[in-house]
Amino acid sequence: MPTKPLAIIAGAGTGTGLSIAHRFARAYNVIILSRSSASIDPVISAVEASGGAAYGIPTDVSSEASVTAAFSAIKAKYPGSPTAAAVFNAGSWNRAPFLETALEDWERVFGIQGRGAFLFSKATIPLLLASKHLEYPPTLIFTGATASVKASANFTVFAAGKWATRALSQGLAKEFGPQGVHVSHAIIDGVIDVPGTKEWAFDADAKISPDAIADAYWHLHTQPRTTFTWELDVRPYAEKW
Amino acid sequence: MPTKPLAIIAGAGTGTGLSIAHRFARAYNVIILSRSSASIDPVISAVEASGGAAYGIPTDVSSEASVTAAFSAIKAKYPGSPTAAAVFNAGSWNRAPFLETALEDWERVFGIQGRGAFLFSKATIPLLLASKHLEYPPTLIFTGATASVKASANFTVFAAGKWATRALSQGLAKEFGPQGVHVSHAIIDGVIDVPGTKEWAFDADAKISPDAIADAYWHLHTQPRTTFTWELDVRPYAEKW
Amino acid sequence: MPTKPLAIIAGAGTGTGLSIAHRFARAYNVIILSRSSASIDPVISAVEASGGAAYGIPTDVSSEASVTAAFSAIKAKYPGSPTAAAVFNAGSWNRAPFLETALEDWERVFGIQGRGAFLFSKATIPLLLASKHLEYPPTLIFTGATASVKASANFTVFAAGKWATRALSQGLAKEFGPQGVHVSHAIIDGVIDVPGTKEWAFDADAKISPDAIADAYWHLHTQPRTTFTWELDVRPYAEKW
Amino acid sequence: MPTKPLAIIAGAGTGTGLSIAHRFARAYNVIILSRSSASIDPVISAVEASGGAAYGIPTDVSSEASVTAAFSAIKAKYPGSPTAAAVFNAGSWNRAPFLETALEDWERVFGIQGRGAFLFSKATIPLLLASKHLEYPPTLIFTGATASVKASANFTVFAAGKWATRALSQGLAKEFGPQGVHVSHAIIDGVIDVPGTKEWAFDADAKISPDAIADAYWHLHTQPRTTFTWELDVRPYAEKW
Repeated sequence: MPTKPLAIIAGAGTGTGLSIAHRFARAYNVIILSRSSASIDPVISAVEASGGAAYGIPTDVSSEASVTAAFSAIKAKYPGSPTAAAVFNAGSWNRAPFLETALEDWERVFGIQGRGAFLFSKATIPLLLASKHLEYPPTLIFTGATASVKASANFTVFAAGKWATRALSQGLAKEFGPQGVHVSHAIIDGVIDVPGTKEWAFDADAKISPDAIADAYWHLHTQPRTTFTWELDVRPYAEKW
Repeated sequence: MPTKPLAIIAGAGTGTGLSIAHRFARAYNVIILSRSSASIDPVISAVEASGGAAYGIPTDVSSEASVTAAFSAIKAKYPGSPTAAAVFNAGSWNRAPFLETALEDWERVFGIQGRGAFLFSKATIPLLLASKHLEYPPTLIFTGATASVKASANFTVFAAGKWATRALSQGLAKEFGPQGVHVSHAIIDGVIDVPGTKEWAFDADAKISPDAIADAYWHLHTQPRTTFTWELDVRPYAEKW
Repeated sequence: MPTKPLAIIAGAGTGTGLSIAHRFARAYNVIILSRSSASIDPVISAVEASGGAAYGIPTDVSSEASVTAAFSAIKAKYPGSPTAAAVFNAGSWNRAPFLETALEDWERVFGIQGRGAFLFSKATIPLLLASKHLEYPPTLIFTGATASVKASANFTVFAAGKWATRALSQGLAKEFGPQGVHVSHAIIDGVIDVPGTKEWAFDADAKISPDAIADAYWHLHTQPRTTFTWELDVRPYAEKW
Repeated sequence: MPTKPLAIIAGAGTGTGLSIAHRFARAYNVIILSRSSASIDPVISAVEASGGAAYGIPTDVSSEASVTAAFSAIKAKYPGSPTAAAVFNAGSWNRAPFLETALEDWERVFGIQGRGAFLFSKATIPLLLASKHLEYPPTLIFTGATASVKASANFTVFAAGKWATRALSQGLAKEFGPQGVHVSHAIIDGVIDVPGTKEWAFDADAKISPDAIADAYWHLHTQPRTTFTWELDVRPYAEKW
């Protein structure tokens, strides 16, 4: 099926990225850009196990050369396929007293949340602009966090990166919405229910379901262009906020 | 089907209210609370035409007595039916230079956006708290507007009312989320495509589709309690913001 | 000094209102509108003890008739005096689980934060518009709180009122700024150091100084019209936020 | 006066930086960190002309080595002098359609608003923490812009940088406020009245006065630690917002 549309997802793993890949693979060929094969392979397996198709490209989103190479590989693999959706789900993390934060921590966070988000946007927007003939408006979604709207003590550097990504998503929504591309930002406010948080002592359903995040992303993607959502938040019912 | 769940919608008419009624009537018996039979009847007809059931009760949401009577009528009509969803879609409007705004304008706006939203919440939350056994978490949604987050010159009084409704929705989300009730607020940022705006010279699809708003409300309603959205915005792709 | 300008303050007592009266009395004749003589008298005494002049008028700001009478009394007392500044510092309070909040609680809060703020604005803006010849731009300041920007569980009704006041202040700033009237809003985020909070076990200086609030209000008042601040927040250094 | 406290200002020139230097030089020895002698010299001259003392150090705030060298030079020049205030006023600028923005534009903006603000904070906070014995609480102020709270089309990259700086200021305010350091952020919303904007056809006083910005910064600096402002906005009375 050479012209089946593509969904390009930066940032995979066992949580939100996997669920998003799963959900979008029901309609599209999924491309996974992630740092290592170790994080890509389980996503590919899971997608294929449910009858979808996924293709992984180890990519360092903070590197212009790596991003350029990845998009050349996509073009080579799926020549002529339009891109229906792109999701920037790549993550960074930093929690430390400010004076114990090194410049390299700052650079690492901004390599992903800043330069990485910028490079991914530059690479995907031209593809999305060329996909306005598809069933749903072409969509670019960014994954945010509590820190996207609130900078807390010891999370200053992490928050600075997340605020930068959110600003990027807002400016892009305003510039490319009128050109028919739907740009959204999701604030994930709470602990996500993934293998890595299994040991955290929470009530049964007090963690965010990555599948439900994926459903929200799919809802965003299917909104008609009369009715675009820029931003929504999600949190578990039990979350204090 | 005596125990088919209810969806109670305050504020009907030919736009968003009608679309919401339509959408929720696919699963629930719909109750319409609106000021006059003239605004209720077209909604009932439309719902019934597509095979749903709707029941209208002329109600002044700004009056405690009228709201009390309405909920007694609901109970009498559908004894034992649980309430799956409630939508506060009642509207007010005021656009005027501030010094030309009379106290009665202020009172009219706050009768709906303030007291009306308060009374509707007081009446529906106990019903929603009793409905946690249904397929989807019980849901209370408030319809907001651009003015819910921005007070512009000449819209001061309207905005004051809308900010009050939004605060109400946020406080209720925080208090009743942990009790299993999903409270949401939707910022409708743009002109809605309804008969009353037909003459406005806009591009073909530069107005918000009320059906797409209804789809967003339904998506909110179906989110599992692990993953509640408090707020989302919607606007046409062409909207400047 | 018949034409000494006036500063009109709604909401007095032993805290912020008294400090504001004190501060503005260094330059202006101060008018105190407060519910009872019991709250007015200590302010008058304190102002006079430091050589200023203050005049109190028992006023229910939630009553149109009472507000009208108060401004007639001001005019009779100080005919021809321009109004340099007006401060809406009247307070309400409500903390309760939502379902235990009665309609009369809602009405009480909105009587002050809604109708009261509206009536005070309607009465003072024409006076301020006529005062553009004075040393500083005529100024209208509203006192806000943490709840002005965040609706927490059990503070829903209080927050709804505070959000309404904040919206009012923003709309008025946008409408009357271009006409030369400076409208501001101050978010007082923390416990104020007043007699009523003496027993609260806080560190020595972890409560907000009402005199420092008054200094901030005076700074706002003295800003030239090239450089108006709409909003600032204040909180004690030790406050968690 | 070897122990006269210091005020360290990053970003000088003929506008806000010069006015801030002027204002703070009434009480402190002022240090100017700016890219070139050409931007430093007029500030030094102006400060000295009014009887103050200023010392300039050509500095590239985006370079760790340059910032380290600058603070060594400060220490060598004023051994034992406490630092009373620090102002991050360094600017970047970018206005372009997103797809015409190169990675080097992104890097340039984030070199100043991101890494530069980070390095300046890391260098000044330890000095400020050691200055709690001075007359006013030690203060760190960041200069923001309209784009700090709103990402507009064609300003996406600029806004992303400004949002990052604002997040930094909020996180630092929360972390270091309880340690006695006052961190603030000022949103400068409008055109500043500087030589570079002389030709812009505005009404007489419809541009922001850099001296009034400096007065606001001085007010922030003199707030007692009971009553810290994190953020204020300033705009000309005539500004549409």
